[in-house]
Amino acid sequence: MTNGHIFLYETMGTAMLLLLGCGVVANVVLKGTKGNGGGWLLINFGWGLGVFAGVYVAFKSGAHLNPAVTVAQLIMGKIDFGQALIYWAAQMVGAFIGAVLCWLAYRDHFDAEPDPALKLAVFSTGPAIRNPVWNTITEVIGTFVLVFVILISGGTPSGLGPLFVALLVVGIGASLGGPTGYAINPARDLAPRIAHALLPIKGKGSSDWSYAWVPVVGPVVGAILAALLFKAIGSDSIFPPIA
Amino acid sequence: MTNGHIFLYETMGTAMLLLLGCGVVANVVLKGTKGNGGGWLLINFGWGLGVFAGVYVAFKSGAHLNPAVTVAQLIMGKIDFGQALIYWAAQMVGAFIGAVLCWLAYRDHFDAEPDPALKLAVFSTGPAIRNPVWNTITEVIGTFVLVFVILISGGTPSGLGPLFVALLVVGIGASLGGPTGYAINPARDLAPRIAHALLPIKGKGSSDWSYAWVPVVGPVVGAILAALLFKAIGSDSIFPPIA
Amino acid sequence: MTNGHIFLYETMGTAMLLLLGCGVVANVVLKGTKGNGGGWLLINFGWGLGVFAGVYVAFKSGAHLNPAVTVAQLIMGKIDFGQALIYWAAQMVGAFIGAVLCWLAYRDHFDAEPDPALKLAVFSTGPAIRNPVWNTITEVIGTFVLVFVILISGGTPSGLGPLFVALLVVGIGASLGGPTGYAINPARDLAPRIAHALLPIKGKGSSDWSYAWVPVVGPVVGAILAALLFKAIGSDSIFPPIA
Amino acid sequence: MTNGHIFLYETMGTAMLLLLGCGVVANVVLKGTKGNGGGWLLINFGWGLGVFAGVYVAFKSGAHLNPAVTVAQLIMGKIDFGQALIYWAAQMVGAFIGAVLCWLAYRDHFDAEPDPALKLAVFSTGPAIRNPVWNTITEVIGTFVLVFVILISGGTPSGLGPLFVALLVVGIGASLGGPTGYAINPARDLAPRIAHALLPIKGKGSSDWSYAWVPVVGPVVGAILAALLFKAIGSDSIFPPIA
Repeated sequence: MTNGHIFLYETMGTAMLLLLGCGVVANVVLKGTKGNGGGWLLINFGWGLGVFAGVYVAFKSGAHLNPAVTVAQLIMGKIDFGQALIYWAAQMVGAFIGAVLCWLAYRDHFDAEPDPALKLAVFSTGPAIRNPVWNTITEVIGTFVLVFVILISGGTPSGLGPLFVALLVVGIGASLGGPTGYAINPARDLAPRIAHALLPIKGKGSSDWSYAWVPVVGPVVGAILAALLFKAIGSDSIFPPIA
Repeated sequence: MTNGHIFLYETMGTAMLLLLGCGVVANVVLKGTKGNGGGWLLINFGWGLGVFAGVYVAFKSGAHLNPAVTVAQLIMGKIDFGQALIYWAAQMVGAFIGAVLCWLAYRDHFDAEPDPALKLAVFSTGPAIRNPVWNTITEVIGTFVLVFVILISGGTPSGLGPLFVALLVVGIGASLGGPTGYAINPARDLAPRIAHALLPIKGKGSSDWSYAWVPVVGPVVGAILAALLFKAIGSDSIFPPIA
Repeated sequence: MTNGHIFLYETMGTAMLLLLGCGVVANVVLKGTKGNGGGWLLINFGWGLGVFAGVYVAFKSGAHLNPAVTVAQLIMGKIDFGQALIYWAAQMVGAFIGAVLCWLAYRDHFDAEPDPALKLAVFSTGPAIRNPVWNTITEVIGTFVLVFVILISGGTPSGLGPLFVALLVVGIGASLGGPTGYAINPARDLAPRIAHALLPIKGKGSSDWSYAWVPVVGPVVGAILAALLFKAIGSDSIFPPIA
Repeated sequence: MTNGHIFLYETMGTAMLLLLGCGVVANVVLKGTKGNGGGWLLINFGWGLGVFAGVYVAFKSGAHLNPAVTVAQLIMGKIDFGQALIYWAAQMVGAFIGAVLCWLAYRDHFDAEPDPALKLAVFSTGPAIRNPVWNTITEVIGTFVLVFVILISGGTPSGLGPLFVALLVVGIGASLGGPTGYAINPARDLAPRIAHALLPIKGKGSSDWSYAWVPVVGPVVGAILAALLFKAIGSDSIFPPIA
């Protein structure tokens, strides 16, 4: 797998994840949509199945789709730092593209929605109760669960792999998404926030940059803790690792 | 596989898809049903599992069930134009039959429902905010996701295939169905619209023909874009292709 | 497989199905439960996963769990009439036991619930709009879908089989359960109705015997039609048939 | 597998189960969360996917995660009493850790929530209608279903195993969770209750010790009955048993 292929597949897969992930939030929160008020489980399935589709699309590059997963694979020695940079760049570019596509798909509903906070909510996460320290802890815990279970399971998206990680993300959202909206992925939050800032969205408000570091730092710390614990227990994965 | 077999299986499979797909909308929107007001996720699961059942039924013919999928397989060179015509005809006939069966299953609830718009909604999609250009873009994006992920995954409904495509359709509905109700399939929308126009439905209103081209053009364009991108990246499918 | 083993496993499996199936209705409709008002999708998942658990339990006897499925297997020549009698007897006994266990599990909520109609609804189906002819047609269509897709898929509960049939039942409930509550299984409706009539349920009302033939006749007719169509098209199953 | 490894993996797996399981209750019931009022099906998926993640994490130790399952494996002769003690200790320690992590993840929402009963509900189950005898019977029935279906299916978490048991737990919650909130696991209830008593939770109330024996005794009795019936029918598991 060349760096070009890694970049191509991670970009496409992360764009797919964000298009579907941001899309379900748009469907639930924006004015006049058919899924308006559809509930938290609908949001969880939308994001989980966004991961599902994204993993298929990025199958060939290992489907990290998440800088925190790439951090863990770097710590595990599965990739080198140069490759990690390619993954991270692709994830940011893909997440940006996915957020733009979501905005295009829901264009008229963005225009119809009067509340700027709901427009931002489609792009990026925000805390239910703003408290950077505890919000970060919540993101650390959620991402720890994501990365640790992926490492235990082998981290490779073959056979049942896409379904497995989709269900894991549904579960994390259902159970740990309540306080912060479960970014658990720095690219998922930061790149759409940049898109929100740059796009000519009618009636948009602040991109809430003061919170932007939380869904970056929390997931990275969670991934590091997960990888370190995984190494400390000397565990093997259930499935054979990817090359 | 003879053309007769293709016609038989695609007709039966698409009838199954439409019976269950239109059925869940009837259950959620028509007066007095047990699932009335059941929500968007219920609709998403109904359509997704309609695809699930339809793929089993049309297994032998490759389970396109969707003219847009057939367009993509034609571009990929998996079928020739004569076969594509058989698929398209079968999909239209099957979708018509499925919509009629749904009407029979919910006969008394169609009679009890006073709102003509809800009666049409069981058969065909309609936009939340009417805007042909943007509605078409939404259908292009939704169908692109459907077809691109099917092509990436190999497009063959074996083993986990029916479950995979069912979940993909649940995800597209959850995330991209908000503005237009996700036709993402010309036969799914046009044939039931014809059924709505022809059937002696008590108190029915307009079949909204002015919108009818959107869920045909959008999905076809989306499928073409997906097939072209798939060819452009020179990707292989994850699973071996069907003969 | 001896007749005794068929009886044992079908009885246990159908009891499991009815315990979980009636249980989810009790949870959604009876006064004071934690799932009260939980919605149609919750009911669909409860019945679908009741099938899931029941298929595991009755794996060795082929997990018919439903006299309509047994009718189809009889028409297909997979079992003889003497075996069919064993299956039917076991399904009725098992469904009765499951309904009794559900009543025990929800004992205090049956006592607390003032509406006799809701108590009956836990045991047996009833029409949303009472119209025996159309109610029967709805049950014919729903059971046709169940049995035809089972026959197409091979009818054998191995590997993904329990999940497959569980999802199929979730889909039928979501899409075709609106008018009659989807009995699609004579034993599922008749045996609990007998239990309702016999059990000393506090404040119970009529067992609605005038409707009792609909969820028996409809499913049997639907199964016969499905088996005849399956034979007419000369289809093979996807999976190898059970011996 | 050494006793140390059993302890390590069961502790980690049960902590994962309780973090996600208690987490979904916190998300649904505590003030101001994003999933507030999300409904019973959301709770069922949260617990089911908590089992899913926990089974992966504790794969190597057989993923009992539940003293009642360990009781059944002891009766079946798969483990000896010394090993059972290790499992039980690990499950209690893990459940305690998981509950503490859940409290940390939802820290500000515990502080914001005025109702002490809802704070306890995140940690431990409570009856909808308090009646120790019938509450115990409900827990006996629910745990019987869990353990009997696990024994029938082989009890080994490979391949589809984690998904199987997750769906089984979703089904039990949907169908039998209405009266008592489905502990069906002594460690799931008792260890978080101890955590509730010990943690400095702002504005907490009673830990309801008078009820604490029900979700211990009920599950143990249910597991014993399931194992005895399984032995009585001389059944084999569908899948080969774990060593």
